[in-house]
Amino acid sequence: MSDLHWNSAITKVEPNKLTVRGYPLDGLIGKASFAQMVYLLLKGEMPSENASRMIEAILVSSVDHGTTPPSVLSALNVASTGAPLNASVAAGILSISKFHGGAIEDCMLTLKSAMDIKKGKGISLDESAIEIIQKFKAENKRLPGFGHRLHTNDPRTHTLFALANELGIADDYCKLANVFVNQLKEISGKELPLNVDGAIAALLCEMDFDPILANGFFMIARVPGLIAHIYEEKIRQKPMRKIHPTDVIYDGPENRSL
Amino acid sequence: MSDLHWNSAITKVEPNKLTVRGYPLDGLIGKASFAQMVYLLLKGEMPSENASRMIEAILVSSVDHGTTPPSVLSALNVASTGAPLNASVAAGILSISKFHGGAIEDCMLTLKSAMDIKKGKGISLDESAIEIIQKFKAENKRLPGFGHRLHTNDPRTHTLFALANELGIADDYCKLANVFVNQLKEISGKELPLNVDGAIAALLCEMDFDPILANGFFMIARVPGLIAHIYEEKIRQKPMRKIHPTDVIYDGPENRSL
Amino acid sequence: MSDLHWNSAITKVEPNKLTVRGYPLDGLIGKASFAQMVYLLLKGEMPSENASRMIEAILVSSVDHGTTPPSVLSALNVASTGAPLNASVAAGILSISKFHGGAIEDCMLTLKSAMDIKKGKGISLDESAIEIIQKFKAENKRLPGFGHRLHTNDPRTHTLFALANELGIADDYCKLANVFVNQLKEISGKELPLNVDGAIAALLCEMDFDPILANGFFMIARVPGLIAHIYEEKIRQKPMRKIHPTDVIYDGPENRSL
Amino acid sequence: MSDLHWNSAITKVEPNKLTVRGYPLDGLIGKASFAQMVYLLLKGEMPSENASRMIEAILVSSVDHGTTPPSVLSALNVASTGAPLNASVAAGILSISKFHGGAIEDCMLTLKSAMDIKKGKGISLDESAIEIIQKFKAENKRLPGFGHRLHTNDPRTHTLFALANELGIADDYCKLANVFVNQLKEISGKELPLNVDGAIAALLCEMDFDPILANGFFMIARVPGLIAHIYEEKIRQKPMRKIHPTDVIYDGPENRSL
Repeated sequence: MSDLHWNSAITKVEPNKLTVRGYPLDGLIGKASFAQMVYLLLKGEMPSENASRMIEAILVSSVDHGTTPPSVLSALNVASTGAPLNASVAAGILSISKFHGGAIEDCMLTLKSAMDIKKGKGISLDESAIEIIQKFKAENKRLPGFGHRLHTNDPRTHTLFALANELGIADDYCKLANVFVNQLKEISGKELPLNVDGAIAALLCEMDFDPILANGFFMIARVPGLIAHIYEEKIRQKPMRKIHPTDVIYDGPENRSL
Repeated sequence: MSDLHWNSAITKVEPNKLTVRGYPLDGLIGKASFAQMVYLLLKGEMPSENASRMIEAILVSSVDHGTTPPSVLSALNVASTGAPLNASVAAGILSISKFHGGAIEDCMLTLKSAMDIKKGKGISLDESAIEIIQKFKAENKRLPGFGHRLHTNDPRTHTLFALANELGIADDYCKLANVFVNQLKEISGKELPLNVDGAIAALLCEMDFDPILANGFFMIARVPGLIAHIYEEKIRQKPMRKIHPTDVIYDGPENRSL
Repeated sequence: MSDLHWNSAITKVEPNKLTVRGYPLDGLIGKASFAQMVYLLLKGEMPSENASRMIEAILVSSVDHGTTPPSVLSALNVASTGAPLNASVAAGILSISKFHGGAIEDCMLTLKSAMDIKKGKGISLDESAIEIIQKFKAENKRLPGFGHRLHTNDPRTHTLFALANELGIADDYCKLANVFVNQLKEISGKELPLNVDGAIAALLCEMDFDPILANGFFMIARVPGLIAHIYEEKIRQKPMRKIHPTDVIYDGPENRSL
Repeated sequence: MSDLHWNSAITKVEPNKLTVRGYPLDGLIGKASFAQMVYLLLKGEMPSENASRMIEAILVSSVDHGTTPPSVLSALNVASTGAPLNASVAAGILSISKFHGGAIEDCMLTLKSAMDIKKGKGISLDESAIEIIQKFKAENKRLPGFGHRLHTNDPRTHTLFALANELGIADDYCKLANVFVNQLKEISGKELPLNVDGAIAALLCEMDFDPILANGFFMIARVPGLIAHIYEEKIRQKPMRKIHPTDVIYDGPENRSL
């Protein structure tokens, strides 16, 4: 052991044997889902069947948002120069930041802060939400996770929350998120529905994930979408084209269901 | 429409409605798996049940390889400077390149080239493999996807191929991969077993994926592993530490099973 | 003009004519220095002859720090996978963050804050410095720009400040930096000399640069160093080697002077 | 010494002493130019006075090209998400690839190949250029470094070559570049003037730089331009705006000279 010796508790690497968080990897292949591996890697333990399904749903809900996000536009601009796939993905990942995906972490912090106030002061969820909303209002800031420039009634949010109820994942944080929606309407007079970032934030709080990891879930989910767009750029477009951010029309298949 | 108008066939974005490759996204949440979404995004169609399970297994097999790969070491060096999660992930992604993950694409190209020779010349898989091996030998190059500096008998490979047989995914490309192993032994006298990159290459060929996407599967699979390591660095280590590439011991849980 | 019309005040691009901040670029080639271009691009105006020399000296002082910084180690880990030069440079750039280079911006903010307190309260530089030091002490934080784990008496700092005096660039901010050194010794009893980050911070304050740009100067300066290390990795080392962070010895030429 | 011991010939780091390629760094601050440091770092030796001026001119010629290049557009898309300066710069760097900046390396390789043919076969520069042009024509490829979609008569090229003549840097490779222009016209009937990438390629060949480093010069030169654009985005634009790639007008100062 050198004086730079360190430890890691993630994966044990031995000749012909890989063990992830104590589970031999070859015993997981074909048995565990990718969503379970995400949970196992980030929490250190295998999720319950219901938590597995919740993580799977969260990842599915965030795989892509078309050509509108800056992560896709930066990735396409890089891909357009003939850069390899991984460099283009990296540029997309670099865009998953404060104003793009960042609301998940910020909303988790807000919800946790409201929960702390509730517990610390022995007040109700409503009183605690009001306190937070007034604080944001005083600082002239938007509450992260509520409202969306495009989706006023995001079907992803409803589906995620319905599933969370069905799976028994929904608890105080989901209640709190809805309390915020009601109090925001009460105080501001405006409908500011929970958006998909806010919904994921509440669900990650329910499953006790560290807010630092919020952006991680978004990145894991979105990489396949980024790759699909970069691949389409490479096979369908000319190099060095000027990429218009809005004058783009969907021309894929319409209206299918499972 | 401006003169920069373009089209995209991936996701249709409308107010309160997201449609991925024609499937309303909210109808997929809770029903489709993440692995299915990966297939849908990259191929444009939903996979069969068996292909879904194969993709899931491929992703699970590649989630992490401990602290040994350069992708983890570059990500940790970035994380150690206090950089945000996404910048650290991007540095890891930038390492998924020619000599790290690149063997999947290179092996796909080799297998496809052997299959083309077989069909073009009307010769057997063995004859075609011999031709390719002799060509690599003449150029003093290693055949990508065969042999591993650490794993002489990679259990991931066996598990993936056993599953592929069970699911009916294994066909000519898997046969060809084994023909290569036998002919490599015959010609070089050395055991150069198919490694996990080679196994994934054969399976992606069986499912008719474009080799350009090979690295994409590896990135999708590995991002959760990268995030787990970066998170561990952030919560367990001091900033700006000197990161030794080999003097690291696993100290997580031992020997568990599902 | 579309509804996405925007303006930029940096470079006008016309056929056969490029004009940077109003200066035709071909009139600058062979006449202006690179350091002058940096100033012109970032401030919008040509620097004085003395400011040019100061910027040049700042850039020269930061070109490289051997194989020790995490920016070099992350860049080498990426380069070692066979990644192209630009991907390796990008990984290095991603390490120029809070704890690596970030002290320049943090020290600029501290110096500006001290100057604001001095002006706002009508107190002396010493009183203002004491106030700031006590605040950092109360929060158990280190003052950015002072002290260095390796260089107790950094010759770069002395040379930069001597030049700043000679060129008439040194003024209140340089005085303030020295006041901090004296007060830190007074209050903590420890020698915490101004380090090179702190010196550059004071000089960028003197030339009225926005602290947001601090890291930019460090990146501009350090890219050639990163490229030299990546190039050495590519021509001198085997791919996928394990890169030890400290067991490295300099074997270049010794003791030369201009 | 561990079994991972390695050497580096770039910078010796000792307490209170940094020595770059044998030159104490504090002896260079205020004396050497940044362009000289670039040469010293990449070649290992101090340049002649004339080579210094040539490198300086090459760097100045490439500092910016307005908002048109994909490197600026990807950097702005990243910056627009609230990402830090270094992440935005990294995205720009990732765009300096095959079709953007890559012509410098490709043109160096072409010029060197023509020079090798000339020497190997004992033929004239013209004959060697014709051989290369015919080869590109047969493969239906464009000769890198010649022609530009916007600049038919690039003033940067002329100024760089005029300076190279004045400094005695221009020799066989500059001649060869002009031979190519003449033969291209002869063979194709089209005017395909040497562009700025081609001019820099010829000059880097004259100074005997490794073509691997070509993109490095472009990156070193362009980072200040990228930073100027990212800074402008941060202080002048709203987050998450849609960045139009062409509907942008220069609104800075007009027509100034040194």
